Amino acid sequence: MSVITVERKLLEKNDFIAGELRKEFLERNIFAVNIISSPGSGKTSLIENIIPSLNYKLKVSVITGDLQTDNDAQRIGALGVPVVQIITNGACHLDANLVRDAWNSLNKDVNLLIIENVGNLVCPSGFDLGEAAKIVIHSTTEGDDKPLKYPQVFRNSSVLVINKIDLLPYLNSSVDIIMENALSVNPHLDIFQTSCVSGKGIDELTSWLQQNCLK
Amino acid sequence: MSVITVERKLLEKNDFIAGELRKEFLERNIFAVNIISSPGSGKTSLIENIIPSLNYKLKVSVITGDLQTDNDAQRIGALGVPVVQIITNGACHLDANLVRDAWNSLNKDVNLLIIENVGNLVCPSGFDLGEAAKIVIHSTTEGDDKPLKYPQVFRNSSVLVINKIDLLPYLNSSVDIIMENALSVNPHLDIFQTSCVSGKGIDELTSWLQQNCLK
Repeated sequence: MSVITVERKLLEKNDFIAGELRKEFLERNIFAVNIISSPGSGKTSLIENIIPSLNYKLKVSVITGDLQTDNDAQRIGALGVPVVQIITNGACHLDANLVRDAWNSLNKDVNLLIIENVGNLVCPSGFDLGEAAKIVIHSTTEGDDKPLKYPQVFRNSSVLVINKIDLLPYLNSSVDIIMENALSVNPHLDIFQTSCVSGKGIDELTSWLQQNCLK
Repeated sequence: MSVITVERKLLEKNDFIAGELRKEFLERNIFAVNIISSPGSGKTSLIENIIPSLNYKLKVSVITGDLQTDNDAQRIGALGVPVVQIITNGACHLDANLVRDAWNSLNKDVNLLIIENVGNLVCPSGFDLGEAAKIVIHSTTEGDDKPLKYPQVFRNSSVLVINKIDLLPYLNSSVDIIMENALSVNPHLDIFQTSCVSGKGIDELTSWLQQNCLK
């Protein structure tokens, strides 16, 4: 019983801070997205592709979370955008308090804030970070059935990006089945198919981000 | 502070039950392995390949964990081995109590108990299930740097299986760098390279399991 109480208190505290962040993002007209996926599904590569595709039409900042290393911040920083690396030291998801600390160290004159969560398809889905939209990335290499096995993250997301479609000829995965399974969990998902190798689908995803930033 | 206390109590309870399971497995001469990976790295496919490769030389049972669905138990059950599906209803890892319940519903006359954890490279690594060895699966599609970003699971494992090596010609990943990174975190890892498409490396992994069952 004590566990439930403590968890509820932690979530209440998280939701309070997330609410404050959401209010600030709205007031400043900043579109914030929380990108969630398994390890190695291509979150960082997608961000590396989205930023040049935006062609400097939007001011972007990135907050990136990892258990260890600042590899991702180095990769994204090389594109010339402001980036903060959160190293969670083993914790399995970002929370609103960590994001607030990172956000407060950034210049706030931005249109788009990209938050790259820890690579984990389970725990990040339960933690509101003040984002306007959660984006779940699903690599074709992970098979067809993940939306059914890990429904919460697909249910809580606004967008599904099916990534690494260049590998489809070498896999048993079917994009149609991934989409069918994802839509059975959440019929409101906007779905994009992307490849960071061929560049396919990146412009469509970037357009979606731009449209939401200009709303 | 209360969170730390509760977590410690939970871990103490988990470790107590895991210790009881380990004692029982030793007494019954059962080799138990705890397989951990990201979602879609090929845990179930590897088990589907290991069981026929054992050629009925060992009696095997499987406990498989998922947030939702009994897909994995159905796939493994089709091979004719006893299997129990644990559906965690959203929980991000197996714990010793869940495994004990599953184990107590199985026939105990086995040589090898395979526990397939929830697909998550973070949380399962901290929970002892009474296993003799943790086996971490790393798909080549996840890139080279995961051992550095998710060090705990690589540090706590006895074996690293680098899976989906058939896809290497289409990826930027390097098996040499994955191995170098993994060994920098844990120099004692036994490493196998496998493909469930070509069958490469499956017999070597199976031999390792057989040798440990006969110890």
